[in-house]
Amino acid sequence: MKKALAFDIGGTKIYYTIIDESGSIIDDITKNSTPKTLEGIIDILKTAISKYTEVDVIAIATAGAVNNQNTRVISSTGNLPDGYRNIDFQSLTDKKVFLENDANAAAWAEHIIGSSKDCSDSIMLTLGTGVGGGIILNNKLFKGKSGAAGEMHFKMFPDKRRKCTCGSWDCFEAYASGTGLKRTAEEISGNINITTYDVIDGVKLGCPEMTKIFNLWQNHITQGIIGLANIFDPDCFVLSGSMAEFVDIQKIENEVNNEIVTTPTSIRKGCAGNYSGMIGVALLALDEVK
Amino acid sequence: MKKALAFDIGGTKIYYTIIDESGSIIDDITKNSTPKTLEGIIDILKTAISKYTEVDVIAIATAGAVNNQNTRVISSTGNLPDGYRNIDFQSLTDKKVFLENDANAAAWAEHIIGSSKDCSDSIMLTLGTGVGGGIILNNKLFKGKSGAAGEMHFKMFPDKRRKCTCGSWDCFEAYASGTGLKRTAEEISGNINITTYDVIDGVKLGCPEMTKIFNLWQNHITQGIIGLANIFDPDCFVLSGSMAEFVDIQKIENEVNNEIVTTPTSIRKGCAGNYSGMIGVALLALDEVK
Repeated sequence: MKKALAFDIGGTKIYYTIIDESGSIIDDITKNSTPKTLEGIIDILKTAISKYTEVDVIAIATAGAVNNQNTRVISSTGNLPDGYRNIDFQSLTDKKVFLENDANAAAWAEHIIGSSKDCSDSIMLTLGTGVGGGIILNNKLFKGKSGAAGEMHFKMFPDKRRKCTCGSWDCFEAYASGTGLKRTAEEISGNINITTYDVIDGVKLGCPEMTKIFNLWQNHITQGIIGLANIFDPDCFVLSGSMAEFVDIQKIENEVNNEIVTTPTSIRKGCAGNYSGMIGVALLALDEVK
Repeated sequence: MKKALAFDIGGTKIYYTIIDESGSIIDDITKNSTPKTLEGIIDILKTAISKYTEVDVIAIATAGAVNNQNTRVISSTGNLPDGYRNIDFQSLTDKKVFLENDANAAAWAEHIIGSSKDCSDSIMLTLGTGVGGGIILNNKLFKGKSGAAGEMHFKMFPDKRRKCTCGSWDCFEAYASGTGLKRTAEEISGNINITTYDVIDGVKLGCPEMTKIFNLWQNHITQGIIGLANIFDPDCFVLSGSMAEFVDIQKIENEVNNEIVTTPTSIRKGCAGNYSGMIGVALLALDEVK
């Protein structure tokens, strides 16, 4: 069975391990903090590549949009160092290197071995500090003209209320993310030191104000999914990421199916785990060297 | 060259004519008001089919969503009579009958002979009494799991302000349509008798209040397109329909490209004309009998 050396390069951590064609992780996972310099990132990649000489392909899940040739990062990448998008990853090794956006890769993992494996058309939303999106149409990853499709930056309001990390205003990400929950909590409580944990804990304790904040946040997620369901008419949505564990999947599914004009869809939690980005990009990369 | 008998069945009018494989209309266009009964609609279809015995296929662009087999209407169809979705169109003739949603058909006409013919990925928005949507991905009409994809019922607000014709609240259609412009005008002017013509004429005369209303309406269109551009990363958007002639395409394109996180897109007016639904469905149907 062929094997990939798979990386997950994020703004705070870089992970790597070995993954086989079944999507199984077959070695320890090495974890590093993301270096502040390009050279530091390249050093981690080179160290791993020289350690694992027996693999068939190098698979990299990364923050930022990746081009349709799966060779380069093409859009801004949050906390990663300047020039990250200029890295020529293929120059690091003679083996094939295959890149994919981390949310796209995670959506692929759910599609092949996870919650959406019975669906030809699915949309994954990663609810974490931000919101990632991955769209599978007709059993293929949907990438758009440049590779950047699936950015969940559609508007929740048309009239400039909350600045989004993307530079625009009122994107789904600015409301449906963990950061969005904190901002909703700040606005309602008037307390700028309130945290997402305060809200989640307050809900568990039955606090009416925290429950109101939480419900507003969950409604933002629901309203966004209604729009995506009407646009895509997908078989299912997969919610993953650290914030997904708190949402009431059944309530969201009921509300979505009550409001959409398309046929009923299914809302599910992701089950491919915290390393789904590495698993997904490994499966995509191994397909390329079959 | 093969020929289609093409129909456009809408809530107020039924048109039909003959269209060839080049997309040219090669006979007069017969126009009828849409009958209030199913039998009336079927009579019009039968009359046309018995008149044009030499055609190779029957092509029907219709209001409402059409299934992925292009044989039946599957979703509610506005002003059409009860039971419209139960019509077995194929039973009317021995020739092949091919149905498609009118906005999808019009998007296909723009893709083959119109404004988006140089684009593999495009989104058409028909701005009329309502808003129709047609999505072309990788040179194919995108239909979703049931055929109903491309419904432009994503939310402009998450908090229930304007009821939409679909039964839900605050959909793009409820703001970006001609009806949406009238409702924005009603809300701002306080005059429930104000019409879209009052606004358009007022803008031409330099009236500040009408210009403010118009700009708000155009901004709703822009904000919606920003979201679709970030989700789909398409080559272009095509705006058509009776309201599209009033919008400032260049202003919308500039604002969209200033805000999106994906690569620049192009905004264009449709050029396939008022009969683009019949042309598009004829081209799709003729492909089936090639």
